Amino acid sequence: MRHTMADIYDERVISRASWTYRTFEAGCVVVGIGAMMLRTEPDLPAGWGGICLAIDIFVLLVFALDWLVRLWVIPLQHMAMSPADARKEWISSRSSIIGILSFAPMAVMALVDPSPAGAPVLSVLWVIRFAHYSQGIDMLVSVFAREQQAITGVLFIFFSVLLTGGVVEFLAERHAQPQVFGSVARTLWWGITTLTTTGYGDAVPITPLGRLVAGAMMISGIVVFGLLAGILATGFAAEMKRRDFLRNWDLVAQVPMFHDVGPGTIADLAGLLRPRELPSRTVVARRGAAGDCMFFIVSGEVEIQLEPKPVRLGRGHFFGEMALVTGATRNATVVTTAATRLLVLDIADFRALASAKPELLDIIHQEAGRRSSPT
Amino acid sequence: MRHTMADIYDERVISRASWTYRTFEAGCVVVGIGAMMLRTEPDLPAGWGGICLAIDIFVLLVFALDWLVRLWVIPLQHMAMSPADARKEWISSRSSIIGILSFAPMAVMALVDPSPAGAPVLSVLWVIRFAHYSQGIDMLVSVFAREQQAITGVLFIFFSVLLTGGVVEFLAERHAQPQVFGSVARTLWWGITTLTTTGYGDAVPITPLGRLVAGAMMISGIVVFGLLAGILATGFAAEMKRRDFLRNWDLVAQVPMFHDVGPGTIADLAGLLRPRELPSRTVVARRGAAGDCMFFIVSGEVEIQLEPKPVRLGRGHFFGEMALVTGATRNATVVTTAATRLLVLDIADFRALASAKPELLDIIHQEAGRRSSPT
Amino acid sequence: MRHTMADIYDERVISRASWTYRTFEAGCVVVGIGAMMLRTEPDLPAGWGGICLAIDIFVLLVFALDWLVRLWVIPLQHMAMSPADARKEWISSRSSIIGILSFAPMAVMALVDPSPAGAPVLSVLWVIRFAHYSQGIDMLVSVFAREQQAITGVLFIFFSVLLTGGVVEFLAERHAQPQVFGSVARTLWWGITTLTTTGYGDAVPITPLGRLVAGAMMISGIVVFGLLAGILATGFAAEMKRRDFLRNWDLVAQVPMFHDVGPGTIADLAGLLRPRELPSRTVVARRGAAGDCMFFIVSGEVEIQLEPKPVRLGRGHFFGEMALVTGATRNATVVTTAATRLLVLDIADFRALASAKPELLDIIHQEAGRRSSPT
Amino acid sequence: MRHTMADIYDERVISRASWTYRTFEAGCVVVGIGAMMLRTEPDLPAGWGGICLAIDIFVLLVFALDWLVRLWVIPLQHMAMSPADARKEWISSRSSIIGILSFAPMAVMALVDPSPAGAPVLSVLWVIRFAHYSQGIDMLVSVFAREQQAITGVLFIFFSVLLTGGVVEFLAERHAQPQVFGSVARTLWWGITTLTTTGYGDAVPITPLGRLVAGAMMISGIVVFGLLAGILATGFAAEMKRRDFLRNWDLVAQVPMFHDVGPGTIADLAGLLRPRELPSRTVVARRGAAGDCMFFIVSGEVEIQLEPKPVRLGRGHFFGEMALVTGATRNATVVTTAATRLLVLDIADFRALASAKPELLDIIHQEAGRRSSPT
Repeated sequence: MRHTMADIYDERVISRASWTYRTFEAGCVVVGIGAMMLRTEPDLPAGWGGICLAIDIFVLLVFALDWLVRLWVIPLQHMAMSPADARKEWISSRSSIIGILSFAPMAVMALVDPSPAGAPVLSVLWVIRFAHYSQGIDMLVSVFAREQQAITGVLFIFFSVLLTGGVVEFLAERHAQPQVFGSVARTLWWGITTLTTTGYGDAVPITPLGRLVAGAMMISGIVVFGLLAGILATGFAAEMKRRDFLRNWDLVAQVPMFHDVGPGTIADLAGLLRPRELPSRTVVARRGAAGDCMFFIVSGEVEIQLEPKPVRLGRGHFFGEMALVTGATRNATVVTTAATRLLVLDIADFRALASAKPELLDIIHQEAGRRSSPT
Repeated sequence: MRHTMADIYDERVISRASWTYRTFEAGCVVVGIGAMMLRTEPDLPAGWGGICLAIDIFVLLVFALDWLVRLWVIPLQHMAMSPADARKEWISSRSSIIGILSFAPMAVMALVDPSPAGAPVLSVLWVIRFAHYSQGIDMLVSVFAREQQAITGVLFIFFSVLLTGGVVEFLAERHAQPQVFGSVARTLWWGITTLTTTGYGDAVPITPLGRLVAGAMMISGIVVFGLLAGILATGFAAEMKRRDFLRNWDLVAQVPMFHDVGPGTIADLAGLLRPRELPSRTVVARRGAAGDCMFFIVSGEVEIQLEPKPVRLGRGHFFGEMALVTGATRNATVVTTAATRLLVLDIADFRALASAKPELLDIIHQEAGRRSSPT
Repeated sequence: MRHTMADIYDERVISRASWTYRTFEAGCVVVGIGAMMLRTEPDLPAGWGGICLAIDIFVLLVFALDWLVRLWVIPLQHMAMSPADARKEWISSRSSIIGILSFAPMAVMALVDPSPAGAPVLSVLWVIRFAHYSQGIDMLVSVFAREQQAITGVLFIFFSVLLTGGVVEFLAERHAQPQVFGSVARTLWWGITTLTTTGYGDAVPITPLGRLVAGAMMISGIVVFGLLAGILATGFAAEMKRRDFLRNWDLVAQVPMFHDVGPGTIADLAGLLRPRELPSRTVVARRGAAGDCMFFIVSGEVEIQLEPKPVRLGRGHFFGEMALVTGATRNATVVTTAATRLLVLDIADFRALASAKPELLDIIHQEAGRRSSPT
Repeated sequence: MRHTMADIYDERVISRASWTYRTFEAGCVVVGIGAMMLRTEPDLPAGWGGICLAIDIFVLLVFALDWLVRLWVIPLQHMAMSPADARKEWISSRSSIIGILSFAPMAVMALVDPSPAGAPVLSVLWVIRFAHYSQGIDMLVSVFAREQQAITGVLFIFFSVLLTGGVVEFLAERHAQPQVFGSVARTLWWGITTLTTTGYGDAVPITPLGRLVAGAMMISGIVVFGLLAGILATGFAAEMKRRDFLRNWDLVAQVPMFHDVGPGTIADLAGLLRPRELPSRTVVARRGAAGDCMFFIVSGEVEIQLEPKPVRLGRGHFFGEMALVTGATRNATVVTTAATRLLVLDIADFRALASAKPELLDIIHQEAGRRSSPT
């Protein structure tokens, strides 16, 4: 039981049970937040409030239990440490803190204010449980860290324009519309809706100077948009490249065929291959389809459904290269027989390889020759 | 008749008839949707409703007929398969499904609700017929697939900010404006109009805390814009490069002159050339114009209008290289004599070639010399 | 007189007179359009209308005269052609058409409707006269042409979402708000203000389904923004690189020092240098300032204010390399003595050159040595 | 005292005192502007106005004093010049002008209009004091300078669309809504809120033609956004690359180990390393953590906490390479013993180096061997 739970929680394991558990967890978050939202509806039919409350308490208990079970099984994942040490280290980890935030604040708040607008609204913290599984978030955080200086510069421009524009607008409009432009603080509210081009319309300048300033602020707003987009695009492209490279390097180094090639060639390959994970009994390539890539098997096994007898290929082998060389369609359907991790080489990169690294193609041709020979 | 229709439907054929048919089809979509829109106008003059109905029925019948004719002629495009197999395969193809969606849902709906707001509004499905011809759509789909992980991350941020901001705003404004901020769900409506910087103005915070949260959400909104633009820009640049490379590779490999150069050089060329398709009797280059590119003929024929006797060049030849070498303007007008597919080498790339691949320029010079010699 | 005007109109000539004329022309456009705008003010003081009318007629006559003078002097710029041929060719040129549009439509309209809201508003056409001088416009046009296919795809997505969302919204809101959502056409007006995140607030959905569709459309709107920005960023980067390369190639080829290096090296340099045009008596580098670039003189002359005797350098020479090598600040102020066209080599590129093309640095060192030696 | 102040003002020095002073300065700006904003509140409690005034006068005096002290100590930073020369030069520097703008305009305005909406609002000028420390601003200015031509083109398009759309809208709506579309100038106000997709909703077209024009302007707006974002992204990527390269070059050249490698290799390294500045007693790497980078020490000192005896490494040494080679976690914690400037080589770049510059890895291996040997 404890080992089963440990496997479910281990993010490196891709099993049916862990998938089911994650889906259940996601469902709890969605249903729980939905119940919280329903409870705030003023014209909710009688009785619904109680059901919603019950749902939220149930989800709260699930997440508290989840944290305790994780604490219980964590030593199994870190056999090198003593159980106490493993637990101590885990408690201050990101995973544990997300877990604590899922139940502790709500439990404390329930003692203070258990009304619909009190403790239950803290269920909004449950969304961070999704962050746990999203690999995209880490990437976005890295991009912000990388471009921190430029983003600070843009924010400085943003707030300078906001403040300066706000003060000028205040001077221009304060006599015409004392209600909405009567103080700098009120004018800043107009300023931010204008600079972000939101434009609620609750505060609109009417004097010629006020409108001129407003126009300048709108244009500044789209320039700030543009700058931000440009900065993030630059940082994102760089981060993307770095991640793909590192991930692929580790995978390429696991393929026996590439053990003898130098690190330079592995670096080249790592820039070209794309990893793909497939569950068991999935079609990788279908007979008659256009062949636009070849595959290297990092782990798992595939079956090439050739006539008269299918062929099975395991770790370190590759397939699908024939269609790339001849330009013909796939001559056999390929199906995974176990959960399989593949590296995919696109036809465009295959052709670029022909130019940059002819020796790699030789390796592929040799392997292909060996495979088709009787031994 | 059947062969004519097959040619019209074959997307690889570029003929007057197929062009006419596609224009007719596009016209049907536009006129049909226009008629549907007109019928929903409450103050439509008497009689117009009937005309609009007739138009919609006509277009519906056209599309139903179109599907049947395609089914009839499809075996001619797949001679290798038996007619029944070809038809079976085609019925589940994208092309067929678009066709079915164009008439089946409307026909079924007409039995249930034939009023102007019932069956006719399904004519909006006709727009997907355009997707059939737009190559840009495929590219955009690939970009989304490529950046799926990062886009998921952005959407997660978007909905987290929306939910968290919505809950805080609800707490801040619910007593001040119970009508518009009285429940979390209602506040989320305000939240999405603010986070996307739409700003209808039907729900506007008035408390200081509410306005602070609103300002933070607007800024988050432009950051999300920026992130999304950055991600899509990165993915688009990569996809664009991949497509151009693959398409050009296939075209370059058809030019006899390049049969002997290695795959590395073809890869280089494929990164430089741009394809251009021209109908018959079109001017490719005009005498006296600045020469900023040279052309390779993939298929078709051009006439170089030299004095005293024009010269005709066919598949595998090239022209326009003189202006690049000498820097002079074009010394002759060049006109296509048939539908022609060209590869264009820009002057910037021509000059870069001089640096990267001097042997390619030698090939061009040799060919040019051979062409101008008497044999 | 005729030659003076020809020089003024020749865009390749950079003279005081041509600069003055262009400023006058720009002033005419701005003042003329301003006068037109003033005339449409309903509460304009008596008498002002007449003055504005006079201004517009004056500007109209200036532009008509401008066109005639250009027609008169154009043969001087195309000495190779007969005057009649040169004029015939010019009349259908972009330059001439802009000229004609500046006066012909207004003159014709004045016969039909000379009221303030009639002929004068055509003065808005005068803005295209600016397009004549803006080199940025050509670039943007090229970017759109280059990315035409992808932009068409985005527009297709935009209009599909608009139409589909509009129809669903019509079905959702037509009973609740028949005034603003009573027909598909009216709903499309709401749709476009929502999809572009403009959000006027004159049409706002109130039903739950309507708001859900609206939220989806706003999110689609920012995705379309992102896609468009991504496409244009990709195209713009490519076009920018191409233009810089071509322009620099032509300039580098004019520097005698580089006549002997091969085209490969010129291609490399063309990718590194940036052109700069300076009027006479302008400071290029100031003594004591940080030296972050060196300069090649394409045309004109500079004076290096060395003690005891200043040195003059003309076409084909270079200066400022010392600060790059030693890392010290500039040891002399450099001033142009005539209108001068320079190529600037940035310190970052100078250092990159040291790695990529050591022979180029040798050429620079040799030249520098020769210059400082007594001969 | 004078030397202490000189050190505080010297931006090259990173000391506790200078950090404290900058924080104090930033606090003055924030509190001063806050006080100004408070004073404009119409319903401010009695007595607060006086406190706010006192704060603003205090901050004003601080900034005036700051300028005088800077003037006093500046000769200490430029020992090569005479004190008078150093002061004269500094007075016209950016730093001095920012200082003067912080107190002079307010002091002058106080004589003219000392009311809350008079002199105090000039305190908004204090924000430019932040620009002094923000390195991101310089970068953004360079990007705008670099892309000036293209940005001018976009602004031309923006204003052309605005003017043309405004005139057409004026013609379409002036009879239907004379109040808001009664003159071209008024219509332009609508135009700018529409083209920037702000959409206040105070002016909304109601005629079919007017709405069509409005839709076109909204779409133009998002295209202008896209163009601007694309242009700025391109320029930003180029500027970023240039800056990183220059900064790293200077740092790499200070590491003794790289003195013998050629400039080509330094250029390569400068493109790979990232600088990091750390205060004293900071953990650089923690034992047991994943090793994803190695470090070169430019200045300062670190202590590697090895058992039984820690090792200290100073300027020109490197550490952390073992984890990269073996893939194991860090085998010792590393702490700075003084303010230290490091160059960080990421694992991705370390691996790329293995391919591009094997000789550099040899240097690292040699150094590592020498360090672990008894001498």
